[in-house]
Amino acid sequence: MRQSQLFTKTLREAPADEVAINAQYLTRGGFVFKNSAGVYSFLPLGWRVMGKIMNIVKEEMNAIGGQELFMPALVEKKFMEPTARWDLDVGFYVSEKPSAISHQPSASFVLGWSHEEVLTSIASKYVSSYKDLPFSAYQIQTKFRHEARAKSGLLRGREFMMKDLYSFHASEKDLEAYYEKAKEAYFKVFERCGLKSVYTLAGGGVFTDKFTHEFQVLSEVGEDTIFLCSKCGYAENKEISKLNEEDRCPKCGGRVVEKKSIEVGNIFNQGTRYSDNLNLSFVDENGVKNSVWMGAYGIGISRLMATIVEVSNDERGIIWPDSVAPYKIHLIQLDGNNQEPITKNQAEKIYSDLTKAGVEVLYDDRSDKTAGEKFADADLIGCPIRVVISNKTLAHDSVELKRRNQKETELVSLNEVSQAII
Amino acid sequence: MRQSQLFTKTLREAPADEVAINAQYLTRGGFVFKNSAGVYSFLPLGWRVMGKIMNIVKEEMNAIGGQELFMPALVEKKFMEPTARWDLDVGFYVSEKPSAISHQPSASFVLGWSHEEVLTSIASKYVSSYKDLPFSAYQIQTKFRHEARAKSGLLRGREFMMKDLYSFHASEKDLEAYYEKAKEAYFKVFERCGLKSVYTLAGGGVFTDKFTHEFQVLSEVGEDTIFLCSKCGYAENKEISKLNEEDRCPKCGGRVVEKKSIEVGNIFNQGTRYSDNLNLSFVDENGVKNSVWMGAYGIGISRLMATIVEVSNDERGIIWPDSVAPYKIHLIQLDGNNQEPITKNQAEKIYSDLTKAGVEVLYDDRSDKTAGEKFADADLIGCPIRVVISNKTLAHDSVELKRRNQKETELVSLNEVSQAII
Repeated sequence: MRQSQLFTKTLREAPADEVAINAQYLTRGGFVFKNSAGVYSFLPLGWRVMGKIMNIVKEEMNAIGGQELFMPALVEKKFMEPTARWDLDVGFYVSEKPSAISHQPSASFVLGWSHEEVLTSIASKYVSSYKDLPFSAYQIQTKFRHEARAKSGLLRGREFMMKDLYSFHASEKDLEAYYEKAKEAYFKVFERCGLKSVYTLAGGGVFTDKFTHEFQVLSEVGEDTIFLCSKCGYAENKEISKLNEEDRCPKCGGRVVEKKSIEVGNIFNQGTRYSDNLNLSFVDENGVKNSVWMGAYGIGISRLMATIVEVSNDERGIIWPDSVAPYKIHLIQLDGNNQEPITKNQAEKIYSDLTKAGVEVLYDDRSDKTAGEKFADADLIGCPIRVVISNKTLAHDSVELKRRNQKETELVSLNEVSQAII
Repeated sequence: MRQSQLFTKTLREAPADEVAINAQYLTRGGFVFKNSAGVYSFLPLGWRVMGKIMNIVKEEMNAIGGQELFMPALVEKKFMEPTARWDLDVGFYVSEKPSAISHQPSASFVLGWSHEEVLTSIASKYVSSYKDLPFSAYQIQTKFRHEARAKSGLLRGREFMMKDLYSFHASEKDLEAYYEKAKEAYFKVFERCGLKSVYTLAGGGVFTDKFTHEFQVLSEVGEDTIFLCSKCGYAENKEISKLNEEDRCPKCGGRVVEKKSIEVGNIFNQGTRYSDNLNLSFVDENGVKNSVWMGAYGIGISRLMATIVEVSNDERGIIWPDSVAPYKIHLIQLDGNNQEPITKNQAEKIYSDLTKAGVEVLYDDRSDKTAGEKFADADLIGCPIRVVISNKTLAHDSVELKRRNQKETELVSLNEVSQAII
């Protein structure tokens, strides 16, 4: 992508109302645009990062047999009433007129904030025998939650992107085995996104009365607090924990420390509550009718992007891991205007060669920016490798290569650029 | 994909409330599930087809310089009031409580049914000079429209998938040149989806007061009526046309015929209305402030899937074009149960070989279905090539190959299956 063609620009100042680092850098870099409190647009650079994260999540969900589908945002009352989740505070409700008028019929849709009921209802159409179980299905979809005070940038939005997977089983034992598989898949997702996650015992909030597990990433800006064993890594969310700082770990006897953290994923044993309330059952090998067991597994995709920014940045901007960077290479051409066509020609050739080789390059071909402005933009946007071509580097038949997460620069011969990068 | 693992099943009967062929076949085949009137889930097979269509659309939008982004569904009143589109009947409105209560504050969000205002507002942050123009950006996103009577299956929904591209220009002339490029890209999209589209002069409905163009696909179930020249292909939508059946074509003098058709895309010259109302302007080469010209270009992705089904089916089911089929091959294994492991083993080998070669295969490995049931499912689901392996074909060291759109079957040697298919 030629930076001269990108319709967004970097901004020197963060909006005054954004206090979170993720929102500041993502806004200044042109990754997101805040439309309303807790409601963001993903601009071309940000949507590329989201696409990378979504692909990682899809690959890992497919690897544990998840079948991808896409359910509606408009969730009718008939789905939510049987589970007593129709009128929770978390919902945004849909009506046909902009003004609420007395005697107007009540809303008939809530904007989906979770899809247990919808998928259970779909499944009841197809599942009747033990032979139809187990299976799992997932979607990546915009979700809506009525947050009174949307804050922390993209860490807590009113509209956000989420992956939700649901699994259906003939027994709790089978569900528990799948729960372990999903847990491993989740560790892989976060690791591939450059994040170290902590598996944490937690309560289920308003969504379930069972114990559940969260994946927490340590960060001072996190809204969660966990007790973490510094020896074995066992963790409990403070909300449900009986532990205190400096207590002994109940698993290994090590010391427990209190940490702030960001919840990036969660997994739930939902029991048979949804299937019992929504008529999903199966007949077993002996002809006996049984309840279906359900697991639910969420990952906030946009929150994941924000978390990566929170834990991987410096005073100049974002430091994207290779796996989710909008572009791997930020190619910067200096002194390349009319007076020095040779530099421009060489930059164009490198851009063309790399692009043809399948390398993703953001090419700063802008002729009205200084070297300082271009370097500042590259640091802010945070692609993993910066390649500079200038009269100075060409005097050595070279380009200058610098990794965003290192201080050193190196000169690389023009003939060896591809090898040095790929 | 092993059909035994797919959580959906085919249904013998279409739901009584679905009269349109697209909804009947897509529901019976397990492509979609109707959640509410005009609101569908895309099940794994259907979501694969949608993915194929979305990829085609993305490729053609990228080819004309479209930058992909993703805007919110929650569109705040502040965006829509300046263009007087806040309280149109087409909107679904969002409130924080399920029941409308007197004295409750009015809704502050409409669910996005079109994003001219949102993108114009974003653009106003980045565009100030003629150097920042032109550019175009698009998204593929769920849209919401309050249809009083949602009907025709997926041809007219209340929640549906849409691609909307917007272009911004320094002059109407520049907009018109891009309009022609977009027109050619649209023809490519529909052709790649196996559809012959008719470029049709049309009015703009409630969205614009200028003339616009639609892409119409001839079909008896279409809600539109066009006058089409049988000689040169010129067409006008009946809503704005002064023509009558049998009139002379205003372009070539040929005979005009009246046809029913489905609108699959539209392109609009929006003039400067949005930029004028939302403070998007630019300073030209002479330092003079000017209005920005805007074009808008829509394609209904879910409607496109439904249209393909409407024009490409027979009495047994869907006939997918290769480009958008959920799987290219439907591999059917017969007599392959315990008593004949050799057939099962051969089928498994073909499945494994083709999958490794990157061919998308739906493998009917179900042991509890008759040959007749498997053939009926294959015809209903409509993959382009059916490959049958049975004791009978193996007696000739062969498989039986049949294209969904042809009657003939042929025996193909086991060694040549890959070549015959790829």
